[in-house]
Amino acid sequence: MGQRPPTPPAQPQQRPVIAVDANGADRGPREVAAGAAAAARRGARVLLFGPAAELAQAADRAPTAGPLRGGVEVVDAPVSIAKSEDPARAARSTPEASIVRAARAVAAGEAQALVCAGGTGAALAAGLFNIRRANGIYRPALALPLPVPAHTVTLIDVGAGAEARREHLVQFAFMGAALVQVMLGVRRPRVGLLSNGEEATRGSAAVVEAHAELRAIAARSGTFEFAGNIEGGQVVSGAVDLVVTDGFTGNIALKLIEGVSQTVLSAVRQRARSGPLARLGGALLLPSLGGLRQQIDPERQGGAYLLGLRRLAVIPHGRFSARGFEAAILRAERGAAEDLVGRSHAAMAAQGALRRAPVSAQAASLPEFG
Amino acid sequence: MGQRPPTPPAQPQQRPVIAVDANGADRGPREVAAGAAAAARRGARVLLFGPAAELAQAADRAPTAGPLRGGVEVVDAPVSIAKSEDPARAARSTPEASIVRAARAVAAGEAQALVCAGGTGAALAAGLFNIRRANGIYRPALALPLPVPAHTVTLIDVGAGAEARREHLVQFAFMGAALVQVMLGVRRPRVGLLSNGEEATRGSAAVVEAHAELRAIAARSGTFEFAGNIEGGQVVSGAVDLVVTDGFTGNIALKLIEGVSQTVLSAVRQRARSGPLARLGGALLLPSLGGLRQQIDPERQGGAYLLGLRRLAVIPHGRFSARGFEAAILRAERGAAEDLVGRSHAAMAAQGALRRAPVSAQAASLPEFG
Repeated sequence: MGQRPPTPPAQPQQRPVIAVDANGADRGPREVAAGAAAAARRGARVLLFGPAAELAQAADRAPTAGPLRGGVEVVDAPVSIAKSEDPARAARSTPEASIVRAARAVAAGEAQALVCAGGTGAALAAGLFNIRRANGIYRPALALPLPVPAHTVTLIDVGAGAEARREHLVQFAFMGAALVQVMLGVRRPRVGLLSNGEEATRGSAAVVEAHAELRAIAARSGTFEFAGNIEGGQVVSGAVDLVVTDGFTGNIALKLIEGVSQTVLSAVRQRARSGPLARLGGALLLPSLGGLRQQIDPERQGGAYLLGLRRLAVIPHGRFSARGFEAAILRAERGAAEDLVGRSHAAMAAQGALRRAPVSAQAASLPEFG
Repeated sequence: MGQRPPTPPAQPQQRPVIAVDANGADRGPREVAAGAAAAARRGARVLLFGPAAELAQAADRAPTAGPLRGGVEVVDAPVSIAKSEDPARAARSTPEASIVRAARAVAAGEAQALVCAGGTGAALAAGLFNIRRANGIYRPALALPLPVPAHTVTLIDVGAGAEARREHLVQFAFMGAALVQVMLGVRRPRVGLLSNGEEATRGSAAVVEAHAELRAIAARSGTFEFAGNIEGGQVVSGAVDLVVTDGFTGNIALKLIEGVSQTVLSAVRQRARSGPLARLGGALLLPSLGGLRQQIDPERQGGAYLLGLRRLAVIPHGRFSARGFEAAILRAERGAAEDLVGRSHAAMAAQGALRRAPVSAQAASLPEFG
């Protein structure tokens, strides 16, 4: 037999391309472009959709041209639906919108993940219509890693849907666990189901059913550890890595956490102005409270993650600075490179958590990236 | 015509009698008795159910004997179901339990309101089985006035039920508004419906339907002002006086508020130990933070209010001190004296918010007190 040709030397694996919608940020598209340039300086490959005239200068701060070797390629897409009253309708009826074009670039395989600061509604609609749900997924969900002191807890769903059935909550656990594994390096995330009591019988019908199923799944697989029901007080206590809930409750919980934190810190600040001694005390404590603010800084986590589509989408908050958009792009890149979507999909398939439907009714898979 | 006899001189109106279950408090029945004695010193009339041997001494600190002229009358009821695994079952199967005997005293007209520190589950079950739902009420709800800095916001339902339909949420608004009027003196409470977005279309189906009905009711009646949907962040912002939600979400929200407050204050305290300057600052600020803690002290509000029964029940937290039990008794007395139950019932009747059912299926009304 003839000798087989030697294996070609391993090519350095190409980094995934990230499609970024520059419209919608509070500080304007240039802030997003500055974030993209910063990510490109760390080797990221970005397709940046937005008003080219405005973006070119900021994006040029990237060290190399062309997305294939690391860098930012600007695609002129000046139309924005970020301020639309009805983002879902706008996403359907405005094919030239930057968010739609960015999502289509992902659907077409020109990019492997999406980053969009133009609002959750627009990103969700553009993602659903163009990137589409992954096979067997009932409903996408929005996950948010929330830095609490000395810990990060991820909430899923924080508002992609409103109500959730048992099978939705179960899929949220798988998708969120994969996110925590990839983004936070937690090998076997502790998953808690948010409820109005710790007992397995407490909660809505969907929560009680999901509790039983999650317990059974965790017992037979190593994907995650099921900590059972957790109450509101345990969300920020560090008891679990992932909190599973419906989008109605999750959205309320998220905004309560933000609101209560601000209210308490404001009250402390106000107390620190309540008299000369307190004022001096506040002044001396102030630098350390800055450190606390740093520790719970949402920009470091890149924003919210839209899970359940055929590709990952990251939704940084519109008020983020360039630093937050840079983090979002680098996180999206990591999610694509480590095949976050495929990983959670495989775990769900192994545990029978995917929706069983006629093949014809399912959206075709996108070709795998890698 | 003969002269009519002169109207007899107005009798000083008798103060209502409050039935108090002394079992279940973390610090034991004597702590409740001390609270009852303190309330009696302010003229309250208390029937105190608990272990008489243990209670007599504490209750004797009350100035006058016998409940009719202000004072504490101890009823020997040593059996406690406060630590029961299944309080609902225990309340049905333990007629000699102190909470059941206290509830029966209210049902029999010997007392006009109930105070119980023995846990929400036991109080809810004993109240439902003995005092029973008021005519036309779908489901009782638990309301909690929550002191936030410079404001008090009341949450309803914080956990009497789990899921809630449109008509439940609408009744919660009426019952909570009456509570805010009577207990906090707010003439026309601003009512917000907790949801995952401010738009009238956001939320679960029940929330969307309740939003429409509450808007219509507020437009044609002066009972409350409807502020529309509020998001989680607005719960503690002072935007509304009353937050209406289902018991699942309300319980999670309440425990999140407690947990996040504690976490943030702990983080501030920890920061205040992070270096010599911060330590000095923390020490100087400490007395003022004590004032903040005072301001958000839950004992001042007396605890949670169980609404929707034929008589008012107040559920102070088990960890309260005598001061909290005293507040609970005085609040219960005010609720009875100002006919909180009748007031919200009349408002619901006027707006067609009561359940329409065959009279035979309805529980008979208790005779009015006054």
